[in-house]
Amino acid sequence: MGIIQDRLEALRREMETEGMDYYIIPTSDFHGSEYVDGYFKAREYFSGFTGSSGTLVVGKDMAGLWTDGRYFIQAEKELKGTGITLFKMQEEGVPDIPDFLYREMEPGWTLGFDGRVMDCGEGRRLEKKLAEKANKAGNGTDIRIRYDLDLAGRVWKDRPALPGHPVWLLPEEISGKSTAEKLGEVREALKEAGAEYLLLGRLDDLMWLLNIRGNDVACNPVALSYGFVTPGKMYFFIQPSEVTPEFSEYAGANGIVLKDYGEITEFLERFDYASCGGTGSVLLDEENISYALYKTLEGRTGHVSGKNPTERLKAVKNETELARMEEVYIRDSAALVKFIYWLKHQVGRQEITEITAAAYLDGLRREIDGFVDLSFPTISAYKENAAMMHYEAEEGSCKSLAPEGLYLVDSGGQYLGGTTDVTRTVALGETSSEMKKHFTLTAVGMLQLSDAKFLQGCTGRNLDILARQPLWKEGMDYKCGTGHGIGYILNVHEGPQNIRWRLPAGGGERKEAVLEPGMVVSNEPGVYREGSHGIRTENIMVVENAEKNGDGQFLKFRTLTYVPIDRDAIDTAYMQPVDLERWNRYHAAVYEKIAGYLTEDERQWLAGATAPL
Amino acid sequence: MGIIQDRLEALRREMETEGMDYYIIPTSDFHGSEYVDGYFKAREYFSGFTGSSGTLVVGKDMAGLWTDGRYFIQAEKELKGTGITLFKMQEEGVPDIPDFLYREMEPGWTLGFDGRVMDCGEGRRLEKKLAEKANKAGNGTDIRIRYDLDLAGRVWKDRPALPGHPVWLLPEEISGKSTAEKLGEVREALKEAGAEYLLLGRLDDLMWLLNIRGNDVACNPVALSYGFVTPGKMYFFIQPSEVTPEFSEYAGANGIVLKDYGEITEFLERFDYASCGGTGSVLLDEENISYALYKTLEGRTGHVSGKNPTERLKAVKNETELARMEEVYIRDSAALVKFIYWLKHQVGRQEITEITAAAYLDGLRREIDGFVDLSFPTISAYKENAAMMHYEAEEGSCKSLAPEGLYLVDSGGQYLGGTTDVTRTVALGETSSEMKKHFTLTAVGMLQLSDAKFLQGCTGRNLDILARQPLWKEGMDYKCGTGHGIGYILNVHEGPQNIRWRLPAGGGERKEAVLEPGMVVSNEPGVYREGSHGIRTENIMVVENAEKNGDGQFLKFRTLTYVPIDRDAIDTAYMQPVDLERWNRYHAAVYEKIAGYLTEDERQWLAGATAPL
Repeated sequence: MGIIQDRLEALRREMETEGMDYYIIPTSDFHGSEYVDGYFKAREYFSGFTGSSGTLVVGKDMAGLWTDGRYFIQAEKELKGTGITLFKMQEEGVPDIPDFLYREMEPGWTLGFDGRVMDCGEGRRLEKKLAEKANKAGNGTDIRIRYDLDLAGRVWKDRPALPGHPVWLLPEEISGKSTAEKLGEVREALKEAGAEYLLLGRLDDLMWLLNIRGNDVACNPVALSYGFVTPGKMYFFIQPSEVTPEFSEYAGANGIVLKDYGEITEFLERFDYASCGGTGSVLLDEENISYALYKTLEGRTGHVSGKNPTERLKAVKNETELARMEEVYIRDSAALVKFIYWLKHQVGRQEITEITAAAYLDGLRREIDGFVDLSFPTISAYKENAAMMHYEAEEGSCKSLAPEGLYLVDSGGQYLGGTTDVTRTVALGETSSEMKKHFTLTAVGMLQLSDAKFLQGCTGRNLDILARQPLWKEGMDYKCGTGHGIGYILNVHEGPQNIRWRLPAGGGERKEAVLEPGMVVSNEPGVYREGSHGIRTENIMVVENAEKNGDGQFLKFRTLTYVPIDRDAIDTAYMQPVDLERWNRYHAAVYEKIAGYLTEDERQWLAGATAPL
Repeated sequence: MGIIQDRLEALRREMETEGMDYYIIPTSDFHGSEYVDGYFKAREYFSGFTGSSGTLVVGKDMAGLWTDGRYFIQAEKELKGTGITLFKMQEEGVPDIPDFLYREMEPGWTLGFDGRVMDCGEGRRLEKKLAEKANKAGNGTDIRIRYDLDLAGRVWKDRPALPGHPVWLLPEEISGKSTAEKLGEVREALKEAGAEYLLLGRLDDLMWLLNIRGNDVACNPVALSYGFVTPGKMYFFIQPSEVTPEFSEYAGANGIVLKDYGEITEFLERFDYASCGGTGSVLLDEENISYALYKTLEGRTGHVSGKNPTERLKAVKNETELARMEEVYIRDSAALVKFIYWLKHQVGRQEITEITAAAYLDGLRREIDGFVDLSFPTISAYKENAAMMHYEAEEGSCKSLAPEGLYLVDSGGQYLGGTTDVTRTVALGETSSEMKKHFTLTAVGMLQLSDAKFLQGCTGRNLDILARQPLWKEGMDYKCGTGHGIGYILNVHEGPQNIRWRLPAGGGERKEAVLEPGMVVSNEPGVYREGSHGIRTENIMVVENAEKNGDGQFLKFRTLTYVPIDRDAIDTAYMQPVDLERWNRYHAAVYEKIAGYLTEDERQWLAGATAPL
């Protein structure tokens, strides 16, 4: 029996001891973060699946992994031989986890999970579904939920320690807005929502609000923490090892009371919610708080459900942030241009693997002023590996690059000027006519979306089809959203805005976010053909105002990324004149913005790579 | 003082007698129908505004009319001098009615309306908003709602009688599905929704379910009625004057118990909801039932809120319906082609007004086999009159047509083969380059949407931008949805599907409907320039399956309407090659389908009108 089966059997023994029939292990820390530190990688430990998103459900005689379209190919590969069934989320006929458990569980049974790593919304959907099932049977017996036990921790003996690194302060010339001003805006929003208090569990929201950054998650400069905002104070829960003297002073000056990270539950249990008058209610976003914390508050106080106001305030970048991002995106684009130049000229001449290519690009980024970290591990994928949307090359098994076929690189950096994210697919030599068709349709969709003009009030659901239609027309699709919001020296994925044609599974109750001037969003259509090739072309764009007239306020995008799209993989037969015009306009701008950062050889190459089609 | 002010003053006297501070008069019958018979036109009686959609709110010293973008120009004109304020729905900064009353009303005040003509959803939003306002004041005093008095009826002395015309039966070769089968599908859906009973108040749903049609509303072949479906029976409430011996027999054979229309409230009060076992709950759609009926049920039984299953079942046309529609749309298109031929050749040679033009077209439709009625009053609008989306020409004030400028005709028929709806804008002679630009962008958007391919799961919100983007790119918009569902020998507007970029005001909680094969939907972008011109080009399309592959089930549209779009108003400078290809493909099909129904002169003209651009 394999190591995964052994671990699952050990987990099942613990489940039996506690009388649990199913146990859920989500991919999450205590804050619903997308990327998590080693301490929180229990789902990977018990399944072998290394993707950044997925949930493991273990029953007495089954185990299932739910993940989304980005990871279908990777998960199939990694789950092979483990006996774990892959549930492809949002595919026809595939139940989500609440529906699955509704079908499988019977009154008298018990479901277990660690409520600290289960998001509240999902936990409550489970609660509701299982209550429905029990009601339906109508014999007065419930399906029980136990959320107070971390069974994974009992089995996982060599679990890494909880991270606890010191935070660092952002001066106002980088943050563009003081914590006092941000707290003022948050309290204004609380009033509008009819709440006195705000419970914050999202790490990037907390970093934004306090103008600090942390080091507790690779690539995401965040610190494990909680916040509780009252009309006069803010309580901030953080491990003492993370508090520097500078931060301690800054906190004091801003009316922020520092508490130990571990005290949050007890604090919420003991707080006098009537102490500030009013309704005494707490605003919380059920999608952004753990089920365990929700249950702590339940019954103690009134809730007002709603988005954290911090989420939207953080997403609308201020002028300082936008100006710094604009600059850093040009420097970051120049690094990628240098990389593509190097790759095109060195492939076939020196040994380059997926891993050494990524290392070369990462090295170019490190040379940029203000570099802090990568914004996520560079995805460097050649040929069929690129069909796995979030492929991670591994020493030993990774591919060597040859002067043929397509190579995909999705990468980004954390700089003092912002967070970047960019994908290009590069023809290393001959490519098939099918690949060229896929590559061209992807570029046409990406540029069509970049060039959109739309009325105030639109969300990403209204716009997604502009990127997707060229592929849909040919009966093709990519199984992921077209775009995500991007943080400022923060998480590479942030909300509330996105560009998707439908809401993610389980998120039916989430409100869509209207696109507002100052929001930053990615634009990354693609084609993924298992066993053959993967194509993605990704630019980052800022929403800004266009004209306002009797028909309304129009908005448009301004592109931040200036890297040529590979003309060697283009078949202009799939382009209309308007597509050529967009292509040429974009590439003229690439040359203008980037040429000054290059060597003479690189500059000459760029002139050719950006010449009109 | 004018007649409108007199009527409002009389209403205010009644409000004072009953102690009401505000009184609301919606545009509705007891069933939320879009078009209503004279008996129900209280809003028009008290405001002078003749549009098909709008709500009047009367206070002690104000009166306001809320209507949507289709009617802004018309309402401004008709409200002039009445002292009634126009509230332009969904415009920036314009409150909706609940928000307005939240702002204006104080604890201790009373809001009145006739609960039978107020839809439940809107009534409950009012309830909630006013309760919030009263709670906020926190002095224990409520804002009262009285919904049991029809004050409008007290003032309106010469009110028309309630209509009560006999119904007629649709044989199965026309309906395509028996009432027994439909009732079976409805009961299946009830089970899935966890309800025992269904309360139906939507007239077109009831007509569909019982395979009957009525004559109680002009252009809409429906009969005033209610339905209550139980596991074993269906109770159908209708005026005795409407029941024919044939229908009485059909009802008996299908387990349908006939009751008097006026008995619905008493029936719901007395019904034993526990009699059929189960949860004893009633499924009702809060958007499709009156507030008064909702209040009758409230407290008596559990509710399950949800769409009437009839709505979706009715919207997905069966094969008989689709085959008959396809045929009748060709005949209907041919009538419009004959009309355009006549118009182009006779304008300037004989006196033609907006009204005589409409009469000529209506006459051509009447000659078609199976003609029953118009599906709505023909909109015949020349030059600036066409800028009013739902303009109705009036004897005496209507325009005479001359060989210049643009003429818009939006029309349709009720036939035994289906309900049609089509709009064309015709150049009667010289048109300006601005008009040509607007006309071309409209046609390009319409054809781009017609040609869409999309994945199963898309709603109209995903697709709307395909029609609108060419206009948005130029900073223009039309203030209405792009498309609506269409009935089968029923209402020209039906749900649940539509093509809109955002949901209608007040409908935030309504679920969007996924587009399914068999659904029929209109595609009608336009440009409206007050004081100058109005352009709309409208085709009707059926959703059908395209390919299914590893990327999913794709869907596309099949067009039912075959009428040339006027090439005389086209400027090909605004068209890409793909737009020309779509244009030419559509027009080749128009000629092929329609030529056989024309005289030789008409045929020759059509050949030129459909020749490739």
